[in-house]
Amino acid sequence: MKSTILSVGTELLFGQITNTNSVYLSQQLNILGFDVMYHYTVGDNPDRLGEMIEMAFKDCDIVITTGGLGPTQDDLTKEIACKILHDKLVLDEKALENIKSVFQKLKREMTDNNVKQAYFPTRAEIFYNDIGTAPGFALEDNGKIIICLPGPPREMNTMFESKVRPYLEAKSDGKIFYRMLRTFGIGESSLETTLLDLIENQTDPTLATYAKESECALRVASKRKTREEAEEAVNDMIETVKGRIGKSIFSYDNEHIYEVVAKKLIEKNISVSCAESCTGGLFAETLTKTSGISKVFDRGVVTYSNQAKIDELGVRQETLDKYGAVSIETAVEMARGIKEKTGSRLGISVTGVAGPDGGTVEKPVGLSCICAILDDREEVQEFRSRHTDRNANRNYSMLCMMHMIYKLICQ
Amino acid sequence: MKSTILSVGTELLFGQITNTNSVYLSQQLNILGFDVMYHYTVGDNPDRLGEMIEMAFKDCDIVITTGGLGPTQDDLTKEIACKILHDKLVLDEKALENIKSVFQKLKREMTDNNVKQAYFPTRAEIFYNDIGTAPGFALEDNGKIIICLPGPPREMNTMFESKVRPYLEAKSDGKIFYRMLRTFGIGESSLETTLLDLIENQTDPTLATYAKESECALRVASKRKTREEAEEAVNDMIETVKGRIGKSIFSYDNEHIYEVVAKKLIEKNISVSCAESCTGGLFAETLTKTSGISKVFDRGVVTYSNQAKIDELGVRQETLDKYGAVSIETAVEMARGIKEKTGSRLGISVTGVAGPDGGTVEKPVGLSCICAILDDREEVQEFRSRHTDRNANRNYSMLCMMHMIYKLICQ
Repeated sequence: MKSTILSVGTELLFGQITNTNSVYLSQQLNILGFDVMYHYTVGDNPDRLGEMIEMAFKDCDIVITTGGLGPTQDDLTKEIACKILHDKLVLDEKALENIKSVFQKLKREMTDNNVKQAYFPTRAEIFYNDIGTAPGFALEDNGKIIICLPGPPREMNTMFESKVRPYLEAKSDGKIFYRMLRTFGIGESSLETTLLDLIENQTDPTLATYAKESECALRVASKRKTREEAEEAVNDMIETVKGRIGKSIFSYDNEHIYEVVAKKLIEKNISVSCAESCTGGLFAETLTKTSGISKVFDRGVVTYSNQAKIDELGVRQETLDKYGAVSIETAVEMARGIKEKTGSRLGISVTGVAGPDGGTVEKPVGLSCICAILDDREEVQEFRSRHTDRNANRNYSMLCMMHMIYKLICQ
Repeated sequence: MKSTILSVGTELLFGQITNTNSVYLSQQLNILGFDVMYHYTVGDNPDRLGEMIEMAFKDCDIVITTGGLGPTQDDLTKEIACKILHDKLVLDEKALENIKSVFQKLKREMTDNNVKQAYFPTRAEIFYNDIGTAPGFALEDNGKIIICLPGPPREMNTMFESKVRPYLEAKSDGKIFYRMLRTFGIGESSLETTLLDLIENQTDPTLATYAKESECALRVASKRKTREEAEEAVNDMIETVKGRIGKSIFSYDNEHIYEVVAKKLIEKNISVSCAESCTGGLFAETLTKTSGISKVFDRGVVTYSNQAKIDELGVRQETLDKYGAVSIETAVEMARGIKEKTGSRLGISVTGVAGPDGGTVEKPVGLSCICAILDDREEVQEFRSRHTDRNANRNYSMLCMMHMIYKLICQ
């Protein structure tokens, strides 16, 4: 089935917010097997909104709108959708209760105009909103379906996950199951080459690659009569993929490497401390994004100056003089230093050239030296970022640190 | 003049990339005084692309496209635009030279299909591309204007700044000048209230507020006969605004607070070290985003555990026992500790409850205690984030640290 995503809101046309709803819905619709033909964005104007919906229905069977479901006079998506699909609005008592209870939960006062949000087309399937005041709905007329969802991304995503996905799955002639694998250390083109026969011959399950920053993701999806069959087909295909690129896969469920690493450290109760130079604290900051990490993360030092490396980590002046601050030798002394000082089981260090200045032929911008020591296993390696941007280089170094730990504790 | 932004690319409809071009162009067009009526996104399909352009021209005088100017068979924006505005494509020798030189600069081999990128409508005004291989152009026919720009955001932005903006300014019946002010410590609604008479009575200059994460921006724009007149009008208005909210303004040129702070520290040669708990290294990481900061940034410590606070900073066990790790007293000892240890002129510390767990009635999630000491001036303050999300709380704490330093060194 063909679909259009229609975003409603003048703030989008002013460039005040980025349209992430279209991205999310496009991904989800494609996964569910619906073709996304167009994205439209229109302001809070009833005539133009109506024209857009009519136009979308010329080509498409499904229109999904976001925004314009609020309580104000501006919010007219529901009214227009209802008119175009030949229905009228009536008060839905359950929706009213739902809205009242959300106001109570949020400890906000409910004003009269919020009652407007409890009116729905008579034939609508209502999607009650658990975390906001605007319920959504689906309305069908003569084979055309409009699905109207709230604009705030968190409300929209939550409603899609719990209510719209099952609604759309029921419209689809099968059940879809997919998993998103994440890989590191293998480029998108070589990932494609390695899996080329699988990708080219794909009917079901299907494989699609996505390049993320310094990483690659692989989506394996299947559409079968039952969810169980689809799940089995996906997992069988994943076994084949694993046989070819298993070493590069760090998550079978679309997790960030830093989440995988943080969870493993907590689970295995491995105490950890870090010493950073070029990343300036990015590693510690990223590792501590995960709640509960305080159980194992003891401390980090950002030793930017040479003196700091000497004072904090016991790096020797002669090592700095002979090999330089950016060197394997300095990285090793940094990691040993933080490990000894803290008594953590895992010590990790990084020193590198983030750029844009400070690079040489021998030690170019993007070079980083990383050392990780777990108990008595010591790993040390040089990495070269392909980026030229300072922050991209720092991010790459941080990812390399995460992956080095991943190998030490998971492989 | 009314305008439509038309994004071309199947990858947008798959949700593989976020449409940031529309955001940028919407902002720029609004600043230049053009109304943005619609955003459309369409795949690499000539028929649908053509229909979208025709549809946009029903309502609008200007259509700006991004994407579809590449060398492959898929890339057809130029061909379709040319057909709709009744022109034909001819080889432009200068464009060919331009493309060849870009290939040389990028050290990439130029293949035959790249010659396609040097063909342009006979009446087009060509926008040569300094950093990529696809030139853009503007084509006018009977009062309708199409402007076709490359898809990669960096190329598009650069071309817009240097070539499209002057082209559009010439189409406009005046010259536009604007400045973007950034404020902290004043909410969007109270910013609006304070400036309400100026906003409500605005004809020229115009004022518009934008809420950013924990900050607010204010755009002051003027359209006059000459740029000089517009600039003068903007600067006069800024003086009035300054009289009311001057203390909250940290940048008159849309800079991040961390850039302003880093540049000032470098300029004034103030050595700095930091001690972080709840932010986990985010402050050090953000401060060191600015190249050249190594001149003044000595080191940071992320003292997550109590033991780390004692070992690294000399925080007293009794202070931790009596007041807790998250307290004004601990923050002060942390800042004094890092300052004494490093001899830096500026020492700054933070300790707080990032959440989602660990909050109490007395010390709720979102609380942070920050202490900054410059030479012998000591500032200490409690902050409460309105967010509930761990990372948003950490980010808020980091911004508060930046602003505390800003006050110490700039005010």
